[in-house]
Amino acid sequence: MPANPRPRTAFRRIGVTGNPKDRRVMAGVAQLCAHLLARGLTVYAAAGPRLPDGVRRLDEPGFAARCDLVIAVGGDGSMLYAARRIARYRVPVLGINRGRLGFLADVAQDEMLARVDDILDGHYRSEERLLLDAVLVEGRRRVASGIALNDVVVKRHATGRMLEYETLVDGRYVNTHLGDGFIVATPTGSTAYALSCGGPIVEPGLDALVLTPICPHTLSDRPLLIPATRTVEVRLRDTTPTSPGEPRRPVPAGERAEVSVDGETVGRLGPGFSVRIRAARQRVTLVHPLDHDYFGVLRSKLRWGRDGSDGGPAAG
Amino acid sequence: MPANPRPRTAFRRIGVTGNPKDRRVMAGVAQLCAHLLARGLTVYAAAGPRLPDGVRRLDEPGFAARCDLVIAVGGDGSMLYAARRIARYRVPVLGINRGRLGFLADVAQDEMLARVDDILDGHYRSEERLLLDAVLVEGRRRVASGIALNDVVVKRHATGRMLEYETLVDGRYVNTHLGDGFIVATPTGSTAYALSCGGPIVEPGLDALVLTPICPHTLSDRPLLIPATRTVEVRLRDTTPTSPGEPRRPVPAGERAEVSVDGETVGRLGPGFSVRIRAARQRVTLVHPLDHDYFGVLRSKLRWGRDGSDGGPAAG
Amino acid sequence: MPANPRPRTAFRRIGVTGNPKDRRVMAGVAQLCAHLLARGLTVYAAAGPRLPDGVRRLDEPGFAARCDLVIAVGGDGSMLYAARRIARYRVPVLGINRGRLGFLADVAQDEMLARVDDILDGHYRSEERLLLDAVLVEGRRRVASGIALNDVVVKRHATGRMLEYETLVDGRYVNTHLGDGFIVATPTGSTAYALSCGGPIVEPGLDALVLTPICPHTLSDRPLLIPATRTVEVRLRDTTPTSPGEPRRPVPAGERAEVSVDGETVGRLGPGFSVRIRAARQRVTLVHPLDHDYFGVLRSKLRWGRDGSDGGPAAG
Amino acid sequence: MPANPRPRTAFRRIGVTGNPKDRRVMAGVAQLCAHLLARGLTVYAAAGPRLPDGVRRLDEPGFAARCDLVIAVGGDGSMLYAARRIARYRVPVLGINRGRLGFLADVAQDEMLARVDDILDGHYRSEERLLLDAVLVEGRRRVASGIALNDVVVKRHATGRMLEYETLVDGRYVNTHLGDGFIVATPTGSTAYALSCGGPIVEPGLDALVLTPICPHTLSDRPLLIPATRTVEVRLRDTTPTSPGEPRRPVPAGERAEVSVDGETVGRLGPGFSVRIRAARQRVTLVHPLDHDYFGVLRSKLRWGRDGSDGGPAAG
Repeated sequence: MPANPRPRTAFRRIGVTGNPKDRRVMAGVAQLCAHLLARGLTVYAAAGPRLPDGVRRLDEPGFAARCDLVIAVGGDGSMLYAARRIARYRVPVLGINRGRLGFLADVAQDEMLARVDDILDGHYRSEERLLLDAVLVEGRRRVASGIALNDVVVKRHATGRMLEYETLVDGRYVNTHLGDGFIVATPTGSTAYALSCGGPIVEPGLDALVLTPICPHTLSDRPLLIPATRTVEVRLRDTTPTSPGEPRRPVPAGERAEVSVDGETVGRLGPGFSVRIRAARQRVTLVHPLDHDYFGVLRSKLRWGRDGSDGGPAAG
Repeated sequence: MPANPRPRTAFRRIGVTGNPKDRRVMAGVAQLCAHLLARGLTVYAAAGPRLPDGVRRLDEPGFAARCDLVIAVGGDGSMLYAARRIARYRVPVLGINRGRLGFLADVAQDEMLARVDDILDGHYRSEERLLLDAVLVEGRRRVASGIALNDVVVKRHATGRMLEYETLVDGRYVNTHLGDGFIVATPTGSTAYALSCGGPIVEPGLDALVLTPICPHTLSDRPLLIPATRTVEVRLRDTTPTSPGEPRRPVPAGERAEVSVDGETVGRLGPGFSVRIRAARQRVTLVHPLDHDYFGVLRSKLRWGRDGSDGGPAAG
Repeated sequence: MPANPRPRTAFRRIGVTGNPKDRRVMAGVAQLCAHLLARGLTVYAAAGPRLPDGVRRLDEPGFAARCDLVIAVGGDGSMLYAARRIARYRVPVLGINRGRLGFLADVAQDEMLARVDDILDGHYRSEERLLLDAVLVEGRRRVASGIALNDVVVKRHATGRMLEYETLVDGRYVNTHLGDGFIVATPTGSTAYALSCGGPIVEPGLDALVLTPICPHTLSDRPLLIPATRTVEVRLRDTTPTSPGEPRRPVPAGERAEVSVDGETVGRLGPGFSVRIRAARQRVTLVHPLDHDYFGVLRSKLRWGRDGSDGGPAAG
Repeated sequence: MPANPRPRTAFRRIGVTGNPKDRRVMAGVAQLCAHLLARGLTVYAAAGPRLPDGVRRLDEPGFAARCDLVIAVGGDGSMLYAARRIARYRVPVLGINRGRLGFLADVAQDEMLARVDDILDGHYRSEERLLLDAVLVEGRRRVASGIALNDVVVKRHATGRMLEYETLVDGRYVNTHLGDGFIVATPTGSTAYALSCGGPIVEPGLDALVLTPICPHTLSDRPLLIPATRTVEVRLRDTTPTSPGEPRRPVPAGERAEVSVDGETVGRLGPGFSVRIRAARQRVTLVHPLDHDYFGVLRSKLRWGRDGSDGGPAAG
């Protein structure tokens, strides 16, 4: 009798992640785990109720080290979360989207099993994405750090007051900015917060960093693209203007900038501190179905070209 | 008990317009004319095949003078066309939209008869919209003019070269601009071409003119809103820069700016010419169904809030 | 006996304000007070070292009630501060700028005495500016309020997370927004923070409110202008998305929006709270030298037209 | 024996170009030629009055083939002109700016001789810049072509009507756009026309193409950055909408798009035609003084950081 009709896959040990507080996601996680076990694969899951017998439970840090593939169920947020955590284990990630398709999670939950089968059968494409490494430094002391797939954001903490900061690229002075803050984004992050701040869309195949000032005081202070080989430094100025033309005052201790990576706060920046951002040595590998089309994702997410007569202004 | 179940309407003589080259529109026109005749109304139509007997045919200029209401079948473009032409006859306009709802034509063709009945029964709201009066002048000579419901646009004719022009408001100098051109829009036109050029959305209830430079060379050359009581003048400079830092040269005769009203070219502007734009004395009255909601139209046309999680960038 | 060579002025009792911590400003305040006393005028000053004898000191609240004119020395920030505080006393304000000219403070300190003399001699123009009245409400309870000459800003307090809020105009639903926050600005405030967020410039003669979303998630969520007769309401949603496609979660108690007026925090907004903004009943009267030119101020502050070949991109 | 005090330079045969119609430029050309001849160098100049004896006159095409260095006197426009024409000869270019410094021409005419001496002495840095190769094709027929250092622009020729066009990257469909046109820019061109249309600034060290729609109808149709290894195709659609919701009509013969390279029209595009743009095989080498600083040029040209309190909106 014919044997195992499925070709052997390179993905034999699969980790499955999801937000344990989301019931719909956890139903998907359980369904997926059962399906993978039935295929004879080794399945790890970090947490969650009602996981089928046979699933190996692992706490988070050890998770990825034993896997050939991690499948993140949820959406772009879950994918970001997973990707950053497993980055150093060099294990690829596939994203399942609970709702509408995302920029990163491009398999819908209701076609999950069929798509995962295709991928386990070897029908997939993989793509490397740039990660950012952010370090907060005070003098020469490293006080905090973080990894980002989307972006590193330096933003004023207190409202009602502009942040004044300097930017440097590879140690060379670029500009002194007044405004709400500054984003250093990867191409992946170019369609996230940076896009809301006037930044361009950057195809992930371009090794670039996208530097985008947030609500800059000076209208010619525009987004700047630099090669991903460069290091960016953002320094908080020692004094802050109260308003243009007013005398400068020292920044009060409580008025600091917050630094966040992919939306998670990693530290606060006071006068004299700075944050250094560069491409991380490791990249993250995304696994996509064979019909993945980056421009198709853009068209869908940004509602391009669906109907030439809408989504924009009426023309005379 | 005495009949006449319908209250008498103020709209007894109805004009119906539509693009005679669009078969679907003309079917709607014929259907609407038959319906209005059946209600015992006097119906005028400017042109078109297969109009039912009893429709009075009139050539365009005399059209509106005899009507209490004009119904434009087609879309925003048809509505613009009709509104500008009937403006001086002070007859209100209702717009029927062949396809999706428009900014101006807010009755769908497939619910046309029921909606028109409601309106003829007195269930409608009317709204006045600002019109613009544009005059091209050379010295003191008036060489062309036009009426706009959306906008007056001054735009370079030849490619590959910037237009240099000055703007004045009530005779006071505002700025010298370099760029592709300049838009003076009504609130109605704020959601048309001006929106594509970075202008704001202006509620039609605000009596304002929206001055929007097109692709301006100077990044702080931003849209400017002024009261609708003001007169705007756009003057083409006598010389044009070839590129920054290059010596100025006289504008060659062929390199002129075109002036258009609601997308129709009314004339060309050479050095020494100018165009003066102000609110027209007359306004146009739009007729809407009772449930018309300006913000609802914005939400629909601009795809706002349909799904908070889409239509924009992915957030981390 | 020689008669009073100067015509009598309507401004007999003058209040002079300035930041007591700024030495240069206080030198100007002292110089101005001495000058005014020498003209035989009654001079009030709220505080400050080295004020000449004869200056009447008043604490702030009683300040403006006794004055015919307040002169704010400092810059736009000082002018904003003064204008908001004296608004209900209907006393006009003149702004002296310590450094470069401002949008509001349009007399330079080094020509202060001559310009003030002109104004006291009756050579001035006055202009009314719209003020905003903001009220934070929880249910029907009014929990905080404030007056703004520039803007009322609702902004997320915590970083790393979008704010979700609804806007209403005169009680009619406008949109549900995702982003960093929302600005309701006067025409005066249109050249302040709103301009950095993509809003247009609005001539102060136009009675309009400028509604500008800050870094909106949806790219078609553009600035909206409405008549100043309307009331705007901004409501924080009860739940907040973690990221698109993720399940909504209740907003944690600590994650609130801050509401500020002209840059001063007046309160925090949690789920279920809202802020209502409308034009204040009173306006503030600005006093300008006769040669004041609003467009000239724009040209200077925004560096328009100073040199057509610069301040923007190089053209081919 | 006294030695030649100057080190031998690699630049022995120098071409000097300038606009013969600009008197100030031609004075600079003459002065520079005399200086170079006095250094014992071979000097070529294409044209111009009052050139010193000893200058070899060459017509344009043969110009660059015999030179080790071309010096373009004038400004960015002259530099663009020269760079494109000499690109295939692989000869480096130095730009002298008649007026203010430019993005490309970064030596001021009044310090020209000293700076040129430094460069001839070997004190310079050179930098390669990407060029674009544009080909207009009808079916498989190549109908026109051009080289660009800044950008290739496809723009509607007639006013009052939107252009509808499709874009493809490496043969994959990207989007269908409605608007005024489309720019494909090099990093060099990112600070030219593309910046006026909302594009980002791209450091020349990043090998990228900047695709920027001009006044797009759909607000989410944003600038897109792709690797410079890709080929972009812009195709004019066969039909054009008159206005949203209106029936499509064939594009009339006269309504075509114009294609320009660095501002020079190279052809017109009708329905069925397309333009293909990719990085040219050759690059152009710019020669800069040793203290050249790209970010310094940006700061100067875009008026960044000159005074934190100006060049933007007043802050409260």
